[in-house]
Amino acid sequence: MKLGCCYYPEHWPEEMWAEDARRMAKMGLSLVRIGEFAWSRIEPEPGRYDWGWLDRAIDTLHADGLQVILGTPTATPPKWLVDKMPDMVAIDEQGHPRGFGSRRHYCFSHEGYRAECRRIVAVLAERYGNHPAIVMWQTDNEYGCHDTVLSFSDAAASAFRGWLAARYGTPQALNEAWGNVFWSMEYRSFAEVDPPHLTVTEANPAHWLDYRRFASHQVASFNREQVEIIRAHSQGRDITHNFMGFFTEFDHHDVGRDIDVATWDSYPLGFLEQFWFSAEEKRAYLRQGHPDIAAFHHDLYRGCANARWGVMEQQPGPVNWARFNPAPLPGMVALWTLEAAAHGAEFTSYFRWRQAPFAQEQMHASLLRPDSSEAEAAPEVRTASAILAEIGPQQAARAPVALVFSYEAAWTIGIQPQGQSFRYLELVFETYSALRARGLDVDIVAPRADLSAYRVVIVPTLPIMPEGFADKLGALGCPVLIGPRSGSRTASFRIPEGLAPGDLKPLIPLTVTRVESLRDGFSEPAEGFAVTRWREDVESELAPELADTAGRGVVYSQNNVRYCAIWPDRTLLALLVERMAQEAGVPLIDLPDGIRLRRSTSHAFTFNYAKEPVFVPHLGKTLAPAACDIAAL
Amino acid sequence: MKLGCCYYPEHWPEEMWAEDARRMAKMGLSLVRIGEFAWSRIEPEPGRYDWGWLDRAIDTLHADGLQVILGTPTATPPKWLVDKMPDMVAIDEQGHPRGFGSRRHYCFSHEGYRAECRRIVAVLAERYGNHPAIVMWQTDNEYGCHDTVLSFSDAAASAFRGWLAARYGTPQALNEAWGNVFWSMEYRSFAEVDPPHLTVTEANPAHWLDYRRFASHQVASFNREQVEIIRAHSQGRDITHNFMGFFTEFDHHDVGRDIDVATWDSYPLGFLEQFWFSAEEKRAYLRQGHPDIAAFHHDLYRGCANARWGVMEQQPGPVNWARFNPAPLPGMVALWTLEAAAHGAEFTSYFRWRQAPFAQEQMHASLLRPDSSEAEAAPEVRTASAILAEIGPQQAARAPVALVFSYEAAWTIGIQPQGQSFRYLELVFETYSALRARGLDVDIVAPRADLSAYRVVIVPTLPIMPEGFADKLGALGCPVLIGPRSGSRTASFRIPEGLAPGDLKPLIPLTVTRVESLRDGFSEPAEGFAVTRWREDVESELAPELADTAGRGVVYSQNNVRYCAIWPDRTLLALLVERMAQEAGVPLIDLPDGIRLRRSTSHAFTFNYAKEPVFVPHLGKTLAPAACDIAAL
Amino acid sequence: MKLGCCYYPEHWPEEMWAEDARRMAKMGLSLVRIGEFAWSRIEPEPGRYDWGWLDRAIDTLHADGLQVILGTPTATPPKWLVDKMPDMVAIDEQGHPRGFGSRRHYCFSHEGYRAECRRIVAVLAERYGNHPAIVMWQTDNEYGCHDTVLSFSDAAASAFRGWLAARYGTPQALNEAWGNVFWSMEYRSFAEVDPPHLTVTEANPAHWLDYRRFASHQVASFNREQVEIIRAHSQGRDITHNFMGFFTEFDHHDVGRDIDVATWDSYPLGFLEQFWFSAEEKRAYLRQGHPDIAAFHHDLYRGCANARWGVMEQQPGPVNWARFNPAPLPGMVALWTLEAAAHGAEFTSYFRWRQAPFAQEQMHASLLRPDSSEAEAAPEVRTASAILAEIGPQQAARAPVALVFSYEAAWTIGIQPQGQSFRYLELVFETYSALRARGLDVDIVAPRADLSAYRVVIVPTLPIMPEGFADKLGALGCPVLIGPRSGSRTASFRIPEGLAPGDLKPLIPLTVTRVESLRDGFSEPAEGFAVTRWREDVESELAPELADTAGRGVVYSQNNVRYCAIWPDRTLLALLVERMAQEAGVPLIDLPDGIRLRRSTSHAFTFNYAKEPVFVPHLGKTLAPAACDIAAL
Ligand SMILES: [Zn+2]
Ligand SMILES: [Zn+2]
Ligand SMILES: [Zn+2]
Repeated sequence: MKLGCCYYPEHWPEEMWAEDARRMAKMGLSLVRIGEFAWSRIEPEPGRYDWGWLDRAIDTLHADGLQVILGTPTATPPKWLVDKMPDMVAIDEQGHPRGFGSRRHYCFSHEGYRAECRRIVAVLAERYGNHPAIVMWQTDNEYGCHDTVLSFSDAAASAFRGWLAARYGTPQALNEAWGNVFWSMEYRSFAEVDPPHLTVTEANPAHWLDYRRFASHQVASFNREQVEIIRAHSQGRDITHNFMGFFTEFDHHDVGRDIDVATWDSYPLGFLEQFWFSAEEKRAYLRQGHPDIAAFHHDLYRGCANARWGVMEQQPGPVNWARFNPAPLPGMVALWTLEAAAHGAEFTSYFRWRQAPFAQEQMHASLLRPDSSEAEAAPEVRTASAILAEIGPQQAARAPVALVFSYEAAWTIGIQPQGQSFRYLELVFETYSALRARGLDVDIVAPRADLSAYRVVIVPTLPIMPEGFADKLGALGCPVLIGPRSGSRTASFRIPEGLAPGDLKPLIPLTVTRVESLRDGFSEPAEGFAVTRWREDVESELAPELADTAGRGVVYSQNNVRYCAIWPDRTLLALLVERMAQEAGVPLIDLPDGIRLRRSTSHAFTFNYAKEPVFVPHLGKTLAPAACDIAAL
Repeated sequence: MKLGCCYYPEHWPEEMWAEDARRMAKMGLSLVRIGEFAWSRIEPEPGRYDWGWLDRAIDTLHADGLQVILGTPTATPPKWLVDKMPDMVAIDEQGHPRGFGSRRHYCFSHEGYRAECRRIVAVLAERYGNHPAIVMWQTDNEYGCHDTVLSFSDAAASAFRGWLAARYGTPQALNEAWGNVFWSMEYRSFAEVDPPHLTVTEANPAHWLDYRRFASHQVASFNREQVEIIRAHSQGRDITHNFMGFFTEFDHHDVGRDIDVATWDSYPLGFLEQFWFSAEEKRAYLRQGHPDIAAFHHDLYRGCANARWGVMEQQPGPVNWARFNPAPLPGMVALWTLEAAAHGAEFTSYFRWRQAPFAQEQMHASLLRPDSSEAEAAPEVRTASAILAEIGPQQAARAPVALVFSYEAAWTIGIQPQGQSFRYLELVFETYSALRARGLDVDIVAPRADLSAYRVVIVPTLPIMPEGFADKLGALGCPVLIGPRSGSRTASFRIPEGLAPGDLKPLIPLTVTRVESLRDGFSEPAEGFAVTRWREDVESELAPELADTAGRGVVYSQNNVRYCAIWPDRTLLALLVERMAQEAGVPLIDLPDGIRLRRSTSHAFTFNYAKEPVFVPHLGKTLAPAACDIAAL
Repeated sequence: MKLGCCYYPEHWPEEMWAEDARRMAKMGLSLVRIGEFAWSRIEPEPGRYDWGWLDRAIDTLHADGLQVILGTPTATPPKWLVDKMPDMVAIDEQGHPRGFGSRRHYCFSHEGYRAECRRIVAVLAERYGNHPAIVMWQTDNEYGCHDTVLSFSDAAASAFRGWLAARYGTPQALNEAWGNVFWSMEYRSFAEVDPPHLTVTEANPAHWLDYRRFASHQVASFNREQVEIIRAHSQGRDITHNFMGFFTEFDHHDVGRDIDVATWDSYPLGFLEQFWFSAEEKRAYLRQGHPDIAAFHHDLYRGCANARWGVMEQQPGPVNWARFNPAPLPGMVALWTLEAAAHGAEFTSYFRWRQAPFAQEQMHASLLRPDSSEAEAAPEVRTASAILAEIGPQQAARAPVALVFSYEAAWTIGIQPQGQSFRYLELVFETYSALRARGLDVDIVAPRADLSAYRVVIVPTLPIMPEGFADKLGALGCPVLIGPRSGSRTASFRIPEGLAPGDLKPLIPLTVTRVESLRDGFSEPAEGFAVTRWREDVESELAPELADTAGRGVVYSQNNVRYCAIWPDRTLLALLVERMAQEAGVPLIDLPDGIRLRRSTSHAFTFNYAKEPVFVPHLGKTLAPAACDIAAL
């Protein structure tokens, strides 16, 4: 696995560049991402390009043998461009323009801005497309960051109408699909349809789902325009986009189809602080991150672009954007690096080379301090680099377990949670965590993935079954676990005619007749586990495999297929993992708290995420905090 | 008591209607509410009416002997109407238009929309006013739902100015009434007055109170326009409007004067989750609702329209709109139904016949599932229907206790809470609950009600004493309890000249010289009870009847009148109920937790709201959860 | 110390004025503030002045020997003025106008409104400038109240651009200073710059800091315009402005330079409720206020205007504006009054004479009830008046300790907290409290103050070191304590070249290489104290004076200078106070909880803020709750 860093030559005096390049190479880095926010330096005035500095920056890096990932600067249009077409900015749900002064101040649907993007990408690709230093392009930066997928601008409304017309043909078909007879919401023409905002109470969930699909489509088509221009001018180079963590606002699997390498930006400590983890977990893993956060995303993004992936931004110290920003435990930066390798990353690039002493991210730690001294992460990078050299290139081992992940499922649950603690990402993450706690390697895959080679397949939930997906599941011979709410909606966000689980009924003969959500703090007992958050009433000829204390069915199974009719707590997840692994003949390992195991095709990596030393039975030894044991297979 | 359901023929293929009607009748239903959201089907294009489907729907129901309640569709104007006059929507407090895409997207003050409403109601009433199936009309649907009473539109501002001019005559009179000399808020003309929004800090409370009175008046006059048109075209039919639970944004007593029957929409589980109840109560009554929620509203709405009332929407299973949406305990739907009968309802109508598999309310349980199978509630409806047939028509027994309820009081406290835990609805509800816990039947009445026949009269609080109310209280010979803040404001939201309790001083010689609010978690001890939330300093020649441990007076009494100078906790309320009942010679019963008792003129109904079986001393037997015991008197 | 009150003759019938004046004088009051909200009565219509009532009001007060503080009415422009130029109102951060209907509905940058203010102030000053009753002028009222310092109006944007042009000269200089190359935020002209609002994510902190500086400058220049006019027409009179509590939105030291006397509005109970104090403290001091709240502000505002200061509004009972509004413990009004004298106030003026029975503040207690009877505070005022007469005029004793307070520091931390529990005001207040708990008198001073005479100097934090400040500290021989984040930013909100503590390095040889913030509830142990909230990694040749259990340095010292590299908890603050006092030879006293001591030049005042009697060792006796012991020195 290669190492790299993110670098902003435009932030520093030109005389520092050569020394920077020399030190990067010496630290073990071979990749440098540049350029993705530099529009105002590339084109300081409309139509006047300043290539000199960028030519020299790339050449300087190249001179030290560094390979360059060049970003398109479309996440940061300059002020002159915004002033030229003020309606290019997104409009928030309250109707306010989202203005200049930070980044991502654009609407994905604005045709004028899209034309400007095509222009700047074209001139960049023409100039550097065949430069020997350039090995990869990054389109834009973190699509959707700062809640920027949705826009309620006129441009978005107009594009949405066109998208609907293409999808439905007639307003009557749209009315029928959405059930607009309800509350007299029927339209007589597509021109009557608005984005679902500022409605008196919640808009039709079908309206929302189509708006989310449309918005995701706009992101993908925005990206595709850049990809096509780059491919035309820069043959043989890879194209990537850097995705984010715990982010589902657009369909990454769709964008992944258009790029060569999926990359993501890994901030384990910030993500722990900002997401749903309990206060207890936040204290236990304050300086390490929850042991499954990085791995979850590695396995998710490996499933996005033909199994090619990397880490574009790796947290090297405290960040600036979470409510609280602790420093990593010594050793964690090396651990995170090696973990990416264990999961098969092509590279890990640290964000960033040197801490900027100005502007929004000045509190974001880097490999160098602002005074150019090495920060705490630097020696860990050297350590990781040496280990990586020793173990050689790694490829992720084929995982026995597939976890099916769907962005549309995240939208569907989010639009209609029905119980406020039913969170899609949490359900998938908890399932993933239960698997990893028993030493299993996991692939997180799109519904369209080929599932035939897996030994266990889990669908935590999939409210809307894509065309053919149920048949694909039905063709599997391995244990299959299907979670609550699966098959509960049609593509038009309707309850299917024969009720949930809809298309899954041929696989397991049951009907969900009613669902309920339970408030936090309320539970009803079962054998060892408890019913919390969500319960479905099931009619079936099958006797339940598991029931609650009152005798109500919780898990149903037939042949190799199981259906879980409640929100599964950790105890139930552990039990189901145990049963399926046994049925599949997949061996399990009992890992102590904080210990995780990942296999490449050649090595087994064991990580200690706990803040104390832990004795690890499968190794027969104690691992220090942040330690990583690597054993050749 | 009749049973009925809400039905949306426009949601279903016409060929299903006859079978639906047959099954309704067979299930014991005799009433069907239809039409209240069907504007886009009645008038699919401006001026083009489509009556055929509605004619056939009504005739089909009629053919099975079902009686029809026809709703006016004014809660859901179609898109073409909104596009014709975009300024018809309400404007929220931040100045944003509340647009199309759900329901209730109109401003009560928009003259153009009012004209459209008169037109559609007139054509409906003309067509169906004398149809033999039609027994009742419902105006609009749930006025005020989704926070729609207040609007800050130009239409509302203009109407408000007119309302003020009519009320005050001159701007000088308004300035004097409101005290506008304070902070130089004086107006030179009514044209200078705006609604009280977007002010830098809180607006004058007198300004707010008049805006709330005006807004309530707009609701009532909007309703009255429909009532007058219907009366002119549909003689002999009743008119109702379906009110909501725990909702005080307009004066329901005023609207009640214009209609024949007050109905309300009863969702005990949703209300428990969404309102102020403690986490402990929310867990204890998760599947039943607090034992006083339904009864409170039955007794409140019985006091709204000449004692005629019913339940227009009865929760039959989990709903879709609360944070958490649990299923009722088996038996609760029957219990809620019988409880309505015990309180004297003319009918209970379930919401709705069949669960819609599309749009906003697809997760709202119904009598039938979306696949037309019976849902859990259906057999309970049959059970209730059989019991109702057996016991015959019920009329609420004359209650010994009157609880005076005032919408204006809710506004007054809400505008100026002075302590954030002083909630009007909670105070009244807690008082009601203390009475019901001792087996007392209660009438919740408007201040203008005749109180002369009651044996105990309680005014939980009444900051503004209506003209003549104090005299009416003074004429009573029975125990009277008057709560804190009563008489503390004039009609112009001023402190009365001789201080609180103002007009009540002739009844009880005391002066409230100072009030204070106490933060949650702070209390000061008294004999058995505690002073929390609110305390008044009282000057009086009277020795207090009850004092706190430090000797400060808490309750004062003279002759038959008591004044309570603190927020009464449950212990104090129980004590006061005990004393007053004893004085009045009204017998009390000790009811175990979760048990409630209600008498009709012919029967005594005992309900078990607990989730466990409970031994009930007055019955000498144990009631199962959700059980209802009915004993002839 | 004089006593006074705030009085609104315009609220009351003219026939009450003479009796009011008589009673004021008899109660021991000699000062009356009037006029500050009376614009609509002074100028009821554009250009038509009504002086009669005000002439008579002043003369009536004067007739009883009362001295008058006359307020300019610019906080409450009348409706006719707002209607004349609707764009004079401030625009909130979401872009909404902040309209008429309460007070402070103006933008400090609106030139048209400024002209109107100059006009009204000029006519007032011309008319009353030499009236023998007038001893002081108050400009406007509580600048910034209700979040009114910042405005995002066109007027503000335009003035901001001018301010930037004056500060930076060229847009290139601004781009360089702010680091606008980051995210392509570079401007080509000052016309391209907007206020930092409605940005997609946070704006550049340098952008925010300059916007805050600009906004503060606008407040100061708005005030200065009034001061200059008054000085020209009213020689020999003092000018004041009444500041607020815990309020840092503009630089009070700057405004303080233009006025003669700094006054503030003291509401100890409301401030306790509304600020960061723990639930436990809020319960313990519910009726007294935290024992350092009033003192903190006395000492702060004594440092604002050449040591001349007073209390313009003293809480006399429950207020109307906090979440909860309890009544003071009997005696507290006298205690607060005497405490102001102990700290050297020139006067204490109660807010207000008589409780207004109308409009927004009708629930605000006063010296008289609305019915003109005396409220609870009145006898306490007489008591305090008698004691003050007995002890004679008081001047604050020279404090041994200086605490350096910076408004810019508050903005800097607020713009970039980095950890959400790092609150500037809390840090300074906790430090102050630790000093006062050991009986120390404290001066809270501006960074520009002369520090040479102090025996201990504490800088809780000062991220941006003003020009020359480090040299001034370096010249001190006494113990100096410098808190975390000091010297961590340049004037352009950049990390200094050699890293923090920047200019302080000559005083103490260390470098802060990294900082981290720790989530609430997380701590790491040290000797007796704990590391919470904030920790800095320090490189230094010095051995730490104090370290945590893991050996990481926490406090560094060299010669007389200490640097604290963590958020200091109460235990650590106590320890540092102990050490510094010992080094300085300043005697300490152990004060029991709730007891505070303050010395004037002639007396020692001991206050019991506890709600129970407390034995006070240094007095050798027990003080009752709310008691004040005064001993001649
Ligand atoms: Zn080209
Ligand atoms: Zn807005
Ligand atoms: Zn002049």
